[in-house]
Amino acid sequence: MGTRNDGRLPDQLRPITIEPGFLDFPEGSCLISFGRTRVVCAATIEPGVPPFLEGTGRGWVTGEYSMLPRSTYERTPREAARGRLSGRTQEIQRLIGRSLRSVVDLKALGPHSIIVDCDCLVADGGTRTASITGGFVALAEAIRHLREAGKISGEPIRDHVAAVSVGVLGESICLDLDYSEDAGADVDMNVVMTGAGRFVEVQGTAEGAAFGKDVLDDMLAVAAKGIDELVKAQAAALES
Amino acid sequence: MGTRNDGRLPDQLRPITIEPGFLDFPEGSCLISFGRTRVVCAATIEPGVPPFLEGTGRGWVTGEYSMLPRSTYERTPREAARGRLSGRTQEIQRLIGRSLRSVVDLKALGPHSIIVDCDCLVADGGTRTASITGGFVALAEAIRHLREAGKISGEPIRDHVAAVSVGVLGESICLDLDYSEDAGADVDMNVVMTGAGRFVEVQGTAEGAAFGKDVLDDMLAVAAKGIDELVKAQAAALES
Amino acid sequence: MGTRNDGRLPDQLRPITIEPGFLDFPEGSCLISFGRTRVVCAATIEPGVPPFLEGTGRGWVTGEYSMLPRSTYERTPREAARGRLSGRTQEIQRLIGRSLRSVVDLKALGPHSIIVDCDCLVADGGTRTASITGGFVALAEAIRHLREAGKISGEPIRDHVAAVSVGVLGESICLDLDYSEDAGADVDMNVVMTGAGRFVEVQGTAEGAAFGKDVLDDMLAVAAKGIDELVKAQAAALES
Amino acid sequence: MGTRNDGRLPDQLRPITIEPGFLDFPEGSCLISFGRTRVVCAATIEPGVPPFLEGTGRGWVTGEYSMLPRSTYERTPREAARGRLSGRTQEIQRLIGRSLRSVVDLKALGPHSIIVDCDCLVADGGTRTASITGGFVALAEAIRHLREAGKISGEPIRDHVAAVSVGVLGESICLDLDYSEDAGADVDMNVVMTGAGRFVEVQGTAEGAAFGKDVLDDMLAVAAKGIDELVKAQAAALES
Amino acid sequence: MGTRNDGRLPDQLRPITIEPGFLDFPEGSCLISFGRTRVVCAATIEPGVPPFLEGTGRGWVTGEYSMLPRSTYERTPREAARGRLSGRTQEIQRLIGRSLRSVVDLKALGPHSIIVDCDCLVADGGTRTASITGGFVALAEAIRHLREAGKISGEPIRDHVAAVSVGVLGESICLDLDYSEDAGADVDMNVVMTGAGRFVEVQGTAEGAAFGKDVLDDMLAVAAKGIDELVKAQAAALES
Amino acid sequence: MGTRNDGRLPDQLRPITIEPGFLDFPEGSCLISFGRTRVVCAATIEPGVPPFLEGTGRGWVTGEYSMLPRSTYERTPREAARGRLSGRTQEIQRLIGRSLRSVVDLKALGPHSIIVDCDCLVADGGTRTASITGGFVALAEAIRHLREAGKISGEPIRDHVAAVSVGVLGESICLDLDYSEDAGADVDMNVVMTGAGRFVEVQGTAEGAAFGKDVLDDMLAVAAKGIDELVKAQAAALES
Repeated sequence: MGTRNDGRLPDQLRPITIEPGFLDFPEGSCLISFGRTRVVCAATIEPGVPPFLEGTGRGWVTGEYSMLPRSTYERTPREAARGRLSGRTQEIQRLIGRSLRSVVDLKALGPHSIIVDCDCLVADGGTRTASITGGFVALAEAIRHLREAGKISGEPIRDHVAAVSVGVLGESICLDLDYSEDAGADVDMNVVMTGAGRFVEVQGTAEGAAFGKDVLDDMLAVAAKGIDELVKAQAAALES
Repeated sequence: MGTRNDGRLPDQLRPITIEPGFLDFPEGSCLISFGRTRVVCAATIEPGVPPFLEGTGRGWVTGEYSMLPRSTYERTPREAARGRLSGRTQEIQRLIGRSLRSVVDLKALGPHSIIVDCDCLVADGGTRTASITGGFVALAEAIRHLREAGKISGEPIRDHVAAVSVGVLGESICLDLDYSEDAGADVDMNVVMTGAGRFVEVQGTAEGAAFGKDVLDDMLAVAAKGIDELVKAQAAALES
Repeated sequence: MGTRNDGRLPDQLRPITIEPGFLDFPEGSCLISFGRTRVVCAATIEPGVPPFLEGTGRGWVTGEYSMLPRSTYERTPREAARGRLSGRTQEIQRLIGRSLRSVVDLKALGPHSIIVDCDCLVADGGTRTASITGGFVALAEAIRHLREAGKISGEPIRDHVAAVSVGVLGESICLDLDYSEDAGADVDMNVVMTGAGRFVEVQGTAEGAAFGKDVLDDMLAVAAKGIDELVKAQAAALES
Repeated sequence: MGTRNDGRLPDQLRPITIEPGFLDFPEGSCLISFGRTRVVCAATIEPGVPPFLEGTGRGWVTGEYSMLPRSTYERTPREAARGRLSGRTQEIQRLIGRSLRSVVDLKALGPHSIIVDCDCLVADGGTRTASITGGFVALAEAIRHLREAGKISGEPIRDHVAAVSVGVLGESICLDLDYSEDAGADVDMNVVMTGAGRFVEVQGTAEGAAFGKDVLDDMLAVAAKGIDELVKAQAAALES
Repeated sequence: MGTRNDGRLPDQLRPITIEPGFLDFPEGSCLISFGRTRVVCAATIEPGVPPFLEGTGRGWVTGEYSMLPRSTYERTPREAARGRLSGRTQEIQRLIGRSLRSVVDLKALGPHSIIVDCDCLVADGGTRTASITGGFVALAEAIRHLREAGKISGEPIRDHVAAVSVGVLGESICLDLDYSEDAGADVDMNVVMTGAGRFVEVQGTAEGAAFGKDVLDDMLAVAAKGIDELVKAQAAALES
Repeated sequence: MGTRNDGRLPDQLRPITIEPGFLDFPEGSCLISFGRTRVVCAATIEPGVPPFLEGTGRGWVTGEYSMLPRSTYERTPREAARGRLSGRTQEIQRLIGRSLRSVVDLKALGPHSIIVDCDCLVADGGTRTASITGGFVALAEAIRHLREAGKISGEPIRDHVAAVSVGVLGESICLDLDYSEDAGADVDMNVVMTGAGRFVEVQGTAEGAAFGKDVLDDMLAVAAKGIDELVKAQAAALES
């Protein structure tokens, strides 16, 4: 069990940077990097809520996700040109939305909808985990904006939420896989956790052979360590 | 922690039935019931493989999923009329395909594609787990058909695969949620396992509060018990 | 002019079965079989009417139609995946709707819309005629449900409506063609009639040579005999 | 049973005009009028045949149909803008194709495809019957063009084909309904016949009460008279 | 610098004809020809305005554009069948709308929307310029209809608007290119001008080498001469 | 004629920055800023050419364009979610492609296709002109990459190409409009020119009153000055 392609230890994240206020117009935004992977996150506040929430006084948070065509090693055609979102995109959008909502008190948010757009400039693995982690920063900024504008009084954010991947590569359990590692992993898991270290989503998939409970336990422990560091990076970005 | 709506114990499956050969034309098919939930599974063998597998000698298995409009308590409009598959449908289709492929030796399958269609007649919760569990029976029948027709010689099926849901309802960890239970669960998890009791997919989501590692462990233990019974029902159906 | 593939006489229907209440949730439903052809029919009551009927006090009845991908001998791709309904599907949907409306007093139905979904499990010829014939049973059940719920007082159903195919095969005029007969017929006609023996729709098509008035007359007479038996089967199902 | 809105006798066609060679580029074309209804018909010869006919030596004929947005009394939005063809359009396209193919010896046509486009400039009822009647003239011109170019030697056209509507208005059976008559008819029938007076398509629909065999017989007799006159107009146009 | 294919002088228009009132139902319509190019223009008045104009008291004018499939030398498939408008069509529609709005006082038009449909029967080059030129005639007729119906009192039409193409072919600057000239031009420009000789749109494109200011000036002078003649033809048509 | 909102002189560009090599994977890329407007440009080399160029030995260059949803002051929904590209997007894509091709010797490029993706991070006016100007830098980088890889020997780039907007605001002719200026301009013109100062595209539109030849001349002179500076910025970026 030695070091990895890029010299990292198995349980080491790639270099993480978060640049808040990256865009000019959104209520909240940031540019987040997990190594080469770069995602622009933007949170937009819109008045009103979807029909199924009307009259409940509760707000809503959703995520949207896309990749620039040449964020990938080979160019990926635009979904807008194909006329429909791929299954992968829709699955990621649903995951981002659920993850962000898990730490928002929708009652305290009141009748506002927040759309968190995650657009990948460079996709070198981990775009969905970077999107959730950076999306939280954009969301928190937008909610601060709402409060400063006097539109809400309480604090709808109950905790941080962040996400990281973990996988089995040969004998090692590795944290925060880059694209080449992801392509060669036997098991691939995305874990979404709160700042308090509790699970929001656990999505593990055996790409090759099925895996046992002991491997699952080890992966979750490594993920928890990564989440802890990501939450610290979020906090630092939000204080700056 | 008493009994459930329908009198089941927390770790008890709904009545499971599998009727193999339900349709006239497919190479493999069955009607599977998890309580009121009923899904028609049909496996179709098509010559050739998708472009990315051409020339590799390997086969392929995919899943498709749909619900009859009135499989649900209130009618759900057809996706064909809307002109696009919902994100939920695509997510389930990808899950069915990955789960079934996890127990197939694609090299031994040779250059054949198998499409497993899962169409829900009645959707009272657990349609994706019933689809995977019944889809395996249809798939195994179709592969038996290939072998009996002399088109393959080895045995591409390496193990059973089955799926079940488990959730946290109040204080209880409950197996195989029906629709009303699913709507009220705090945590909802779908577990796909092999006959050997190893994990293929673990997808857990906190619908309300995030959950701790102890709850996760308990849910996985209950799921394993359910999978064991489903695998026995599959075996019985395939022997009949 | 001897017997047919399956031993039937020229003017003989395939075995007809109708199983009412086949689904758990719809207001009316049945499984109808014309030989191997099997169609699930479900009638859904929805409040309100389409815009062009608003304020008139009249109700509406429409039909929707689909085939399971592997209802056919070779698999037919899903229309939802293609993103549009084929011309054939739309033509059949319009026919089902018109046929069912022909025996409903829309004024007596009041401001309710009823959607009759016809989904083919097995398609061995005659799916549109089975859909209309079974659709009537589902519709009648749903309307009975409306009356029992006190939502309407009169009887909107004025008569039965049923449908059957008839074709010219070589020298014979044959009733209720199965798939192989349909593919070889020189003339193919679908006839929709009321219980009183009057025409609702007559759709005859020369597949090969055009046909004369005498052949048309003979076909209509054979169709009328078939309709008579179908109406009896409907009545029996509705009494059970 | 007096005269009609526009002074016609019940069994009288509207004024019929056919202007062959109306367009500059197609191999065959005409402008056909049934009263105010005007349809531009254009036949295009394309090399090759659809996949299901490849290698058979047989040709193919299809129809396409559209209405200019303001061919109707109130403007009808373009189907191209909606992104899909309506059910009505597809049904008419299939009818035009079947009707034209019924009089073409596809073997003698050889491996050519002919697309007959029918575009309505003014739609005052009877656009599908005018399309078939004018489409035949465009088709015959295009086939003549093929023969004159030495691309075929035999005569693929076996007979004329024309179409007309007939309906029940109150007590009268009326030929060639205009839009206002069509909207008020109790029974509406489109009849496609050959020059020899044989049936190609019979499509009768009860809009109100179902109808008896005697009415059907009377309608067919009136239609046959109209077809006879239309065939004469076609012949005159093709000789000019 | 001699004469052109068809004997025209470089700065000569093709024969121009405008037949007002060409269609039966629209509030304004005409058939316009620029040589072989023929476009049916129809103006429809609809009550109300798009959402962005609601409550402003201003009206709106838009253009729609389409080509009959066989308006072209080789058949062009229908955009309705492809399910989406091409970029070219949308670009032309936007140009027609902007051009027509440039001479309409939208305040004086009041809360009415006018849709000007331009459908090409024959497309031999210059369909967008013929559409704008003929579209103005249809629009002016429709506005006259509004005034005669007492729905508006002032005169929303402030001036004529017409359009023409001009191009560089070898050494010559040629007016009103036909299809074969357009395909061979080094520079292609569409100019939209008012009756007063002022510019509404100037769209020049170098197809081969880029061009200098002197060439641009010469092209604009030739275009102005053509516009002058087109405006006279419009006036004559509107007086008839 | 004083200064502008942001203190610029009428004929002054916003601050221009070009950061080449902005993305990790494309053969050529840059981030270009025109003031707040920021566009990521990426050039992808793909083997082969579109069908209409096969066998000609010539290459091809196209442009694609999109805006991040929150590049705009208010959020703009994704075109991928709507399922179709807007007319505006298609018009801009066509303009980018034509502009870039105008300075490329497609014969010297050989059988390669280059797609230039222009994705706007911030859209404060001038996104299409920034896309063309930055797209040229990405394109030139990609072509240099082709040459360094030994895949082409000659120099397909014949000159620079850049674009800028110019408009009439009140009495002033202003260069490089930002969003607020663009919204208030009476005339809006986009000019695409080569390094040699020749025109590739001239697209001028009167938003309010039509404009005279003198105004057109003045606008073109101001645009030429801006193009000159943009070409210098391109050259500096390509040398770095």
